[in-house]
Amino acid sequence: MELKAVKNIKFVEGGVCAAKGFKANGIQCGLAHAGASVTKKKNDLALIVADTECTAAAVYTTNKVKGAPILVTKEHLKNGRAKAVIVNSVNANTCNADGVEKANKMCELAAKELGIDADDVIVASTGVIGQVLPIEPIANGMKELAEGLTYDGNSRALEAIMTTDTQKKEVAVEFELGGKTCTMGGMLKGSGMIHPNMATTLTFITTDAAISEELVQRALSDVVKVTLNRASVDGDTSTNDMVCVMASGSAGNKPVTKEDGEFEKFQTALYAIMMNLARMMARDGEGATKLIECAVSGADSDKTAEIVAKSVICSSLFKAAMFGEDANWGRILCAVGYADAEFDINKVDVKIGSAKGVIDVCKNGAGVEFSEEKAKEILGEEVIEIIISIGSGNGSAVAWGCDLTYDYVKINGDYRS
Amino acid sequence: MELKAVKNIKFVEGGVCAAKGFKANGIQCGLAHAGASVTKKKNDLALIVADTECTAAAVYTTNKVKGAPILVTKEHLKNGRAKAVIVNSVNANTCNADGVEKANKMCELAAKELGIDADDVIVASTGVIGQVLPIEPIANGMKELAEGLTYDGNSRALEAIMTTDTQKKEVAVEFELGGKTCTMGGMLKGSGMIHPNMATTLTFITTDAAISEELVQRALSDVVKVTLNRASVDGDTSTNDMVCVMASGSAGNKPVTKEDGEFEKFQTALYAIMMNLARMMARDGEGATKLIECAVSGADSDKTAEIVAKSVICSSLFKAAMFGEDANWGRILCAVGYADAEFDINKVDVKIGSAKGVIDVCKNGAGVEFSEEKAKEILGEEVIEIIISIGSGNGSAVAWGCDLTYDYVKINGDYRS
Repeated sequence: MELKAVKNIKFVEGGVCAAKGFKANGIQCGLAHAGASVTKKKNDLALIVADTECTAAAVYTTNKVKGAPILVTKEHLKNGRAKAVIVNSVNANTCNADGVEKANKMCELAAKELGIDADDVIVASTGVIGQVLPIEPIANGMKELAEGLTYDGNSRALEAIMTTDTQKKEVAVEFELGGKTCTMGGMLKGSGMIHPNMATTLTFITTDAAISEELVQRALSDVVKVTLNRASVDGDTSTNDMVCVMASGSAGNKPVTKEDGEFEKFQTALYAIMMNLARMMARDGEGATKLIECAVSGADSDKTAEIVAKSVICSSLFKAAMFGEDANWGRILCAVGYADAEFDINKVDVKIGSAKGVIDVCKNGAGVEFSEEKAKEILGEEVIEIIISIGSGNGSAVAWGCDLTYDYVKINGDYRS
Repeated sequence: MELKAVKNIKFVEGGVCAAKGFKANGIQCGLAHAGASVTKKKNDLALIVADTECTAAAVYTTNKVKGAPILVTKEHLKNGRAKAVIVNSVNANTCNADGVEKANKMCELAAKELGIDADDVIVASTGVIGQVLPIEPIANGMKELAEGLTYDGNSRALEAIMTTDTQKKEVAVEFELGGKTCTMGGMLKGSGMIHPNMATTLTFITTDAAISEELVQRALSDVVKVTLNRASVDGDTSTNDMVCVMASGSAGNKPVTKEDGEFEKFQTALYAIMMNLARMMARDGEGATKLIECAVSGADSDKTAEIVAKSVICSSLFKAAMFGEDANWGRILCAVGYADAEFDINKVDVKIGSAKGVIDVCKNGAGVEFSEEKAKEILGEEVIEIIISIGSGNGSAVAWGCDLTYDYVKINGDYRS
């Protein structure tokens, strides 16, 4: 699947190591989860470290059940500064009596090895909920992890945060601030337990741009609303979701400290990364074979458009029809109809499209004739667009989802083993 | 699966024909839907007729897209009286420009054959959305349908309203009002596109009890909230949902005209039918292998308990784990945590049970040790109970759902063919 272009933004390689002065590494420290017959042969512990202290911001899950690492990271980011990220997969360190203690310990172990303060460390965990996190493998692996840090270690780190992900999801961009070339890059894990209304999934973004603590938080909080919070795989809001951005300032631009044109450029770069990561996440939804992009326009507000778009991409019936490449548009209209928003259903138009073309399937709330053959051809593609107009207003929104497949059931029928 | 008992209520046979003076029939009139290679060899048109005029009440889908039959039935029930129900499957008669015309025509055809007024006919349709309903097969079959009406035709009528249903879902009960024995019976279709917040699915209930128009509506509106509206298969709210009750008065009881003890008895009988139909519907959810009953107590209100119970039974991840018979309680707690209600997550206890026993899996928001072997044994059953306490309040609620299986995807990957 190709990256989706954003004006004035140039895509580059390197993920979280693309920006100047960020090292990363990932190792397999041996965090097997209870019930697993064999340890998955993949990295399970990652470290990202900045050469200099960064301004940093994060957004977190809205689930009342919060992973212990979320609580610890919130504390550590109160001053808006950070220098490193330690993160493990396999075990979510959530719903355990000793969770906060263990999350703190992870920060301490990383800080000691790096010679920095523990409260400059961001900590995150992802994996099975409710099993005690064994700290020994992490303690034993920390030296190797730190010694292996390199300025091109992004891929090793990314592998270490993946769970049921099948694709590596990272994006990096170049942009310009005050005449200086800045770079920003991010990586994301997330495939199941993914649903709007939060900062979906674990995402780590690094940049060498200089920006104040307040504005990096504002940029992140704004952009997450129209990117990750508009993607859903299965309607389940995770307990451990976190997105964090670290900005080192090494690019040498005059720091962004007010909401001017420079701030907008920073936000656009962040949008280019997070929008593409959101699309990659939905495409790599557990068991998915297709990315579904639903664009709603003509609404009385962006909020109404968003509610309708999310209703469509979250419909199990619609998602199963997309897997079957069946142009069953009645299910789209059904999901539009039960969306919790006010509009005139008799003004709703629906088109289905992809790289193979676009066809009208519904006008003014009623079906129109279309070629089933053409519809099959369109729906045979990997990226499907559902284009909905619900009236003559100026509100619009895009949401991203995936199809519902046998493999989603298979993956989740026995996740713990 | 056994019927669930209700105090003072005796279960009997006969479905919608159990009550005195109700005839029914179902035939295959030949409503093949576009794209189907062969007509399904099953009945597709049903008629239920009362010997005398009945007080009648209905509740309908909350989807903004409403099937044309819903609009026509609403008109016909404005006076709270009805004598017959005409209903077809295969085609939902929804999102068609001529839908209302066709729904009216169905009433006229039935009324003419029965020698009654068209506005004493309730009309309903279920099946594919957005394909024009061919009226000829219905017109041609009406004579045979009416002539075949019998006082034990409930099973033929029930077959005619089924779509992806695999089980016949009907319940009848005997109860006593003012010293007279009354009977009430109902049938339900519903397997997919099923979700709380509406009068889920098509359900027809008949009784020979005498009750006023106002109170039969009140009884239905109250009972639907704690029965069908607490069941979900896939989160999709249908466009054609309707539940209607016809009360003939043939049992000879003094009509129920106020909210006294007699009204309560009537409601209890209605509850016994609708609660059991709700359980049958969830158990027969598309592709389902298990009924999941989630009971939440200790909430500050019944509403809070309901929100939490529905959140659990609607979680795709939880449902897939139930299919895998995997005691992954972290997913239950995750769904409790993202439920849109206020409570202290650190006071949440979770038990998993079935006919094989009950075990604690989570206390005060954290996991407790349990035997995986025992959990497997419990989850091997057909009816699974999830018992959740979220505090020390008096609010409670039960919701019903099912597991998510390969067959759900298969059934819905290409429903139209």
